[in-house]
Amino acid sequence: MRWWGWGADGHDVALPEQALAMLRSELGLDPSASTRPVALEEVRLGASRLDRSVRERLARVVGEGHVRDDRAVRVGHAAGRSYPDLVRLRSGNLAGAPDAVVEPGSADEVRTLLAACADARVAVVPFGGGTSVVGGVDPVADGFPAVVSLDLARLDRVMAVDRTSLTATLEAGLFGPEAERRLAAEGVTLGHFPQSFEYSTVGGWVATRSAGQASTGYGRIDELVEGLRLVAPAGEVARRPVPATAAGPDVRELLVGSEGVLGVICEATLRVRALPAARRYEGWSFRSFAEGHEALRVMEQGDASPDVVRLSDEEETRLSLALASTGSATERAGRAYLRMRGHEGGCLAIVGFEGEEDEVERRRLHTGALLRAGGGVLLGRKPGAAWLRGRYAGPYLRDALLDHGAFVETLETATSWSNLPTLYAAVGDALRKSLSERGTPPLIMCHVSHLYRSGASLYYTFLARQQADVPLDQWRAAKSAACDAIVSNGGTITHHHAIGRDHAKWLSAEIGEVGVDLIRAAKERLDPVGIMNPGKLLPP
Amino acid sequence: MRWWGWGADGHDVALPEQALAMLRSELGLDPSASTRPVALEEVRLGASRLDRSVRERLARVVGEGHVRDDRAVRVGHAAGRSYPDLVRLRSGNLAGAPDAVVEPGSADEVRTLLAACADARVAVVPFGGGTSVVGGVDPVADGFPAVVSLDLARLDRVMAVDRTSLTATLEAGLFGPEAERRLAAEGVTLGHFPQSFEYSTVGGWVATRSAGQASTGYGRIDELVEGLRLVAPAGEVARRPVPATAAGPDVRELLVGSEGVLGVICEATLRVRALPAARRYEGWSFRSFAEGHEALRVMEQGDASPDVVRLSDEEETRLSLALASTGSATERAGRAYLRMRGHEGGCLAIVGFEGEEDEVERRRLHTGALLRAGGGVLLGRKPGAAWLRGRYAGPYLRDALLDHGAFVETLETATSWSNLPTLYAAVGDALRKSLSERGTPPLIMCHVSHLYRSGASLYYTFLARQQADVPLDQWRAAKSAACDAIVSNGGTITHHHAIGRDHAKWLSAEIGEVGVDLIRAAKERLDPVGIMNPGKLLPP
Repeated sequence: MRWWGWGADGHDVALPEQALAMLRSELGLDPSASTRPVALEEVRLGASRLDRSVRERLARVVGEGHVRDDRAVRVGHAAGRSYPDLVRLRSGNLAGAPDAVVEPGSADEVRTLLAACADARVAVVPFGGGTSVVGGVDPVADGFPAVVSLDLARLDRVMAVDRTSLTATLEAGLFGPEAERRLAAEGVTLGHFPQSFEYSTVGGWVATRSAGQASTGYGRIDELVEGLRLVAPAGEVARRPVPATAAGPDVRELLVGSEGVLGVICEATLRVRALPAARRYEGWSFRSFAEGHEALRVMEQGDASPDVVRLSDEEETRLSLALASTGSATERAGRAYLRMRGHEGGCLAIVGFEGEEDEVERRRLHTGALLRAGGGVLLGRKPGAAWLRGRYAGPYLRDALLDHGAFVETLETATSWSNLPTLYAAVGDALRKSLSERGTPPLIMCHVSHLYRSGASLYYTFLARQQADVPLDQWRAAKSAACDAIVSNGGTITHHHAIGRDHAKWLSAEIGEVGVDLIRAAKERLDPVGIMNPGKLLPP
Repeated sequence: MRWWGWGADGHDVALPEQALAMLRSELGLDPSASTRPVALEEVRLGASRLDRSVRERLARVVGEGHVRDDRAVRVGHAAGRSYPDLVRLRSGNLAGAPDAVVEPGSADEVRTLLAACADARVAVVPFGGGTSVVGGVDPVADGFPAVVSLDLARLDRVMAVDRTSLTATLEAGLFGPEAERRLAAEGVTLGHFPQSFEYSTVGGWVATRSAGQASTGYGRIDELVEGLRLVAPAGEVARRPVPATAAGPDVRELLVGSEGVLGVICEATLRVRALPAARRYEGWSFRSFAEGHEALRVMEQGDASPDVVRLSDEEETRLSLALASTGSATERAGRAYLRMRGHEGGCLAIVGFEGEEDEVERRRLHTGALLRAGGGVLLGRKPGAAWLRGRYAGPYLRDALLDHGAFVETLETATSWSNLPTLYAAVGDALRKSLSERGTPPLIMCHVSHLYRSGASLYYTFLARQQADVPLDQWRAAKSAACDAIVSNGGTITHHHAIGRDHAKWLSAEIGEVGVDLIRAAKERLDPVGIMNPGKLLPP
């Protein structure tokens, strides 16, 4: 991944001219604004503070070549990919980069490394793909003599695949595409496709309780973890994989989502599925967001959900149609048809089915009948195909938007079906108020993307003119307003982005002070010196 | 529930004569053996050791009438309903009965009671229905001046039902039938029907990670808990109900299954479903247990499982058919048919579907095709109806068997599909060896009763002639042999009976010493004085 943004160098996703023109007009962007990241050589980086003897001890564990402190590597581990990260990276002020990056080759090496770091009170930041959008891999050094980033990319083995039981044991450092490639060779898939899929890792997914785009069908990562191995400074926890158990509190669930503060998740046994023979993605239209999510509720509670579902609200539909518009005759005809059906200004939904050919067809008909009964109009395969093509494109666009002086951020939550309208309105209002008050009125889009029998997630994308002099103040104000609105309106502070640094302040609103205390108690047991990923998850 | 056995007084389930004759012959029971429990007045009970001032303090919280230490109430809270419990109860040696039974009327009263007990170092045993079969409600007083049983039956409110989101918030003390009655009035069901359903409570289910007979369809209780409120001596944890979250470690999963050692689960928000309009239960036959569980695996992994599934092995099939035999012409014709199909000596399966009429029919056909492809022969509705009628009968029969000098016990585990044959054989062998060595060769039956994509549960029932002089030694030897076999052959020590006292020794084999340490850390935080349900869950 390029050090200052998303994707590999050279993989640029440009904003179409018409989209840019529209955003310039609607957000009031300065047409002359054009900011680019500083050059790598200009990045301001402090000298590594890692003590030479500690460095030598670490090198004895992993080999000299795997303790790295060159500029490119330190910069590459200096931040995740949140909006504040991007702002910071592009500015080139990376005084907080890690003092070194250490690359263990096995769980046993992780154990020895953690012992060495605990002895020297060196902070350790486990690092998978570095795609956190909540500050989860920030190398926080406060109060520590040094901080190292523990890059897990060498833990890339497929330890076992059990075709009969449909489980696979994978090491933490496997990246999404490679994991799927290796599983596909065994005829199975994990089916876990977060938007960060190309650049995120198995360990990162487990450590952050990730949900993928197809998690309505395949299950969230926490539903897929059957066993795992966590290596902590004070010991190891290996949960033997069993399909279900009544053996007391579920310790596994204390480690899933622990975000590196309890130890390093080195491997996980995950539930997999047979590779789907068929995939069918299609678009649906609803007259309104309210009509659409009510139809999704009935569908989900009728056990008829597709594997992928997402329903855009009116604004997200308007903007994505405008951005994708080609002005063709077919498109005009399609719009005329929707207008006739009363769907003009309505909402687009994407539904996708994966599996055996005949099962996909059977489910598609069954689900289709429910969606139609709920007011939906089938738009055919084209919108589905377009969505599939662009499923990982979102993060690339942020870089292009930043180039043009736009502030763009996403955030997400989940709540019960009955509370969905309240929460939806409250978060939108909070963002609108916060940004309008600063003279940067936003565009706010939202979609439902994960369904549960009891509720659903809401995923917001919002854009505004960047306050170039105080971009982080602007971000902080909007983010805080949204988080406050979420916790005071019955939402979870995060449905799949995790806590990291950015949400830590709201964790106690979610699980109470005593709940937070229970995580602290676990941390004291596993990480008594407190070196593991400081500043994350737990409120200050 | 009668104090010495299962069910209400007068609700006796007698063993049919032919069944008794067969067991006498196969187990070598002494036909003259006839033991009955002692009378209530003969039960040996120590004087209550509860300090008068403490008693007064408790009475100020709940009212004088709700601190009870009369003989009947103390005896009624002296034990659960495991085999050793029944042996102990029938013998009348209840020196370990609680010193008093306290009946709080609200979660707030629970909080105040726990504070008073912590001050006085009085041990507290949360008590729901008292149906634990693993010693979970034993009033262990070791090292405490007194022990009280905290009977939660007055916490019996339905706090809220959200028909839109399909959730219900129930207080812990609600018994199964009453909970379902109240939910049915709202058009919903929890669908949680453990064999103890008639006498167990919502709080007990959550505290023990219970699975019900229909959990393949409706989900285990841990999959149904969306939020809960736990009151502990050092504070409260209230997990706000959200359908899913990535907000760090799942503290809820640390409380579900905590078996009273962390605090008292006072209420839970649970996922419910629409009341099923139709129920269809039927029997299937397979040539062998191996053929049957392979068919179930394919069915489950094809997302085609019924709501209830159980597949008896050859021995359980033989015994249950023998016990139910009427010798009618229809029955003889049925047997002849199965013989012709090569199913003589085969295995019986029960499958049950619940839901909307047309959905039940659609699923039944789909599932049926898979079972037929797997070698199954449909036996029609009669076996299904018979199973439904007798679904809660098992525990009653234990009392009748004890009357006739038989040792009867059940235990259960779960493992991956690929390991199922190994574990199945190992546990059976361990039980057979242990009991045969003592001169009491057993009958061992087993069934698969809960399916998961990655594996299934195994539920054993075994019978032998009771060693009347050393019944507990006999039990301990057989139980230990089975537990050792389970943990050394990849099974979980308990799939739905919980840990209690009986499995505590094997917990670290399941989650490791460090895993156990994490539970201890939580206990120290929530129950620093250590009064909560001593002797349970955590290894000594």
